[in-house]
Amino acid sequence: MAEQHKYLLDESQMPTQWYNIIPDLPAPPPPPLHPGTREPVGPDDLAPLFPMALIMQEVSGERYIDIPDEVQDIYRLWRPSPLFRARRLEAALGTPAKLYYKYEGVSPAGSHKPNTAVPQAYYNAAEGTRKLTTETGAGQWGTALAFACAQFGIECEVWQVRASYDAKPYRKAMMEVFGANVHPSPSDLTESGRAILAANPDSPGSLGIAISEAVEMAAQDPTVRYALGSVLNHVLLHQTIIGEEALLQMAMAGDTPDVLVGCTGGGSNFAGLAFPFLREKMAGNINPTIRAVEPASCPSLTRGEYRYDFGDTAGLTPLMKMHTLGHDFIPDPIHAGGLRYHGMAPLLSHIYELGLIEAVAKPQTECFEAGLQFARAEGIVPAPEPTHALAECIAEALRCKETGEEKVILTALCGHGHLDLPAYSNFLAGTVEDHELSQDVIDAALADLV
Amino acid sequence: MAEQHKYLLDESQMPTQWYNIIPDLPAPPPPPLHPGTREPVGPDDLAPLFPMALIMQEVSGERYIDIPDEVQDIYRLWRPSPLFRARRLEAALGTPAKLYYKYEGVSPAGSHKPNTAVPQAYYNAAEGTRKLTTETGAGQWGTALAFACAQFGIECEVWQVRASYDAKPYRKAMMEVFGANVHPSPSDLTESGRAILAANPDSPGSLGIAISEAVEMAAQDPTVRYALGSVLNHVLLHQTIIGEEALLQMAMAGDTPDVLVGCTGGGSNFAGLAFPFLREKMAGNINPTIRAVEPASCPSLTRGEYRYDFGDTAGLTPLMKMHTLGHDFIPDPIHAGGLRYHGMAPLLSHIYELGLIEAVAKPQTECFEAGLQFARAEGIVPAPEPTHALAECIAEALRCKETGEEKVILTALCGHGHLDLPAYSNFLAGTVEDHELSQDVIDAALADLV
Repeated sequence: MAEQHKYLLDESQMPTQWYNIIPDLPAPPPPPLHPGTREPVGPDDLAPLFPMALIMQEVSGERYIDIPDEVQDIYRLWRPSPLFRARRLEAALGTPAKLYYKYEGVSPAGSHKPNTAVPQAYYNAAEGTRKLTTETGAGQWGTALAFACAQFGIECEVWQVRASYDAKPYRKAMMEVFGANVHPSPSDLTESGRAILAANPDSPGSLGIAISEAVEMAAQDPTVRYALGSVLNHVLLHQTIIGEEALLQMAMAGDTPDVLVGCTGGGSNFAGLAFPFLREKMAGNINPTIRAVEPASCPSLTRGEYRYDFGDTAGLTPLMKMHTLGHDFIPDPIHAGGLRYHGMAPLLSHIYELGLIEAVAKPQTECFEAGLQFARAEGIVPAPEPTHALAECIAEALRCKETGEEKVILTALCGHGHLDLPAYSNFLAGTVEDHELSQDVIDAALADLV
Repeated sequence: MAEQHKYLLDESQMPTQWYNIIPDLPAPPPPPLHPGTREPVGPDDLAPLFPMALIMQEVSGERYIDIPDEVQDIYRLWRPSPLFRARRLEAALGTPAKLYYKYEGVSPAGSHKPNTAVPQAYYNAAEGTRKLTTETGAGQWGTALAFACAQFGIECEVWQVRASYDAKPYRKAMMEVFGANVHPSPSDLTESGRAILAANPDSPGSLGIAISEAVEMAAQDPTVRYALGSVLNHVLLHQTIIGEEALLQMAMAGDTPDVLVGCTGGGSNFAGLAFPFLREKMAGNINPTIRAVEPASCPSLTRGEYRYDFGDTAGLTPLMKMHTLGHDFIPDPIHAGGLRYHGMAPLLSHIYELGLIEAVAKPQTECFEAGLQFARAEGIVPAPEPTHALAECIAEALRCKETGEEKVILTALCGHGHLDLPAYSNFLAGTVEDHELSQDVIDAALADLV
């Protein structure tokens, strides 16, 4: 029998529930607080922005939540997604380690984002939302929400971080193909945007600013709601279908991961793969090291503080306890736009504080080098975001080459890089650089917080 | 049971032989001729350009040819490719027809092209080729060959049609990610290119010109050979794995196609899906209508002549009997760059003359409209080339809506359009137009032929 590259599940094997890790944790995560009263926010506080079904998922104590049939039907356009064994990369590295990757690039947006965009659009449509507003960094989330809204007949309006809007014109085109209306952020359409532009007309934008703009627009009209592509509990919940499938597929492959690696921006891709494996680890069934990889230019887990902060730049969201670099921290415009977020999902931050996961930071040139090596061996050009995880996988595989350990490494290849190819051109031309992020910059951003 | 969207084969079910249709035809195709002697060319005439294994496949009388293990191993990175039932598009159209599409966009290049690039690189490596040269239109073929060469340690040099080179910069980046060296064509690196540039410094190029440049470079160095991405018998042969898989998958779905539709540029995508079904049709097992769809701006089957002509603009190739618009016909720079070829595969032209297949031509605006409708319903943005087939599928499905016929329609979705998104932007902005191709232009190009 020839060596197998892919482990596929039939549609009939697709998980029909999302996994909520909160009731399995040794301690509950701290609640979000109202910025005025500093009291925990209740469902009613969030109702102007989100449909009640999502608010209830945000605070649910149920371990498993059924995936609605209408959402499952759309998931099956691309799910279950494939699990690959990177045999040609292993051979190129000469490592005894076994490298597996769960690939989400087969989705309509080319990333994991539709896993939550589809249920968010579904619940909004069910509660009468006419339009959804959102932010997008690299454009993956905006594309996912545009596609999802098209399935349920909802309008979609997207604020795309200016740096990405200018660098990745194909992303805007894809959002428009799926029917969305796209603006660069900061824009002059919102108070938040105008304030930023007044201070800096050439602002490259940030996810925090784009969130402020989208939230502000949604709050003004009761038929309009807002959708967030990461960070919140319900978003991480929806992504757990990745890990649930991967558990089944690793069993098909007959291997158990010793090391699980994922990139983290807001945290939903990492959590999606990791949480089901963490459940099995907490139950004593498996014992993998679970490692988050973040960009060295935006290191919220490894260099941020764990404290209450706003999710957006203008301070329109509740205060969330999370690892943060400060809500007005503006990261370098690196190519992994999806990782340029000042904070980390509160749930993931809490789990990190509990000591259940590790974190490391990587400079982008090492990541592009890993992306190139992966593409030439495996035939998939990865998005800049998951190259952070691939760089760590390759480093781990090379450590195994030194020690002779036959570790099983599993990673989340959360998206393809077809719309990020100019970044690879820049890297091949030698114009991509790493800049040391000084502690003074972080301290200054954190000093502003009350 | 929920409605199924995808029909997947395991790697162990991947076909292990290509299908050669020639011995099953009622008459053999006319041979290629030496342009000087007008005598059939022999294997030795082709040896400067191609390895002997491929030349032998070009003239083989065997019905089935084994796929080498090394090629199968690389195929399994993405093969078997999925067959989809377009249930959400059917619902959007309100048609009783059943629409299936065989999707080749999961490959490293995002199209069907690696199916032949990998064996071509393999046989070249086995016979000591140091470098392969080639042309590319939209860039799909150049990307495929770049990836394939990287697998076998061969250098790859690509001449990309200038119109595509300028309009699709992401394609060049992707070829470079896979390690290729890319030039716009016409270039000043070859006699053929310099002659074109002398006559027209702003020439948008054509596949015929780019072929001349790549052939000229290969002919000058015995360690360099040339690879062609369509047209030739061995290329069509390698693509038959598409149709062999689709036969198995349609059986899984429990349906038999009444209509089979594919787009045609050089003919390899269409032949790849159609030939195994045509074998079954000639054997009396099934009876589908088999329909090629070409662009109205480059209609070699529907408006060209069936006669001997050169495969390239400069006249460096053997004379091939094929449907042609004349080797110096330069089609409008439409967005489906992969369909801008003056001729049609000699084998497919012969089969068309035998009355075994039909052909229609479509203007590009109808095709983009079909592409948009497909993307919003099915979540895959198609390349401009297969939107020609999709436009015909939608027209057929709407005819079924009129008549109430529950026809089964099968098409080849030969690639995604991630690197063609500016074309969709132009279409959405209303700047894509159709131009009537006058008979005078065709007559003039054909009048030059001897």
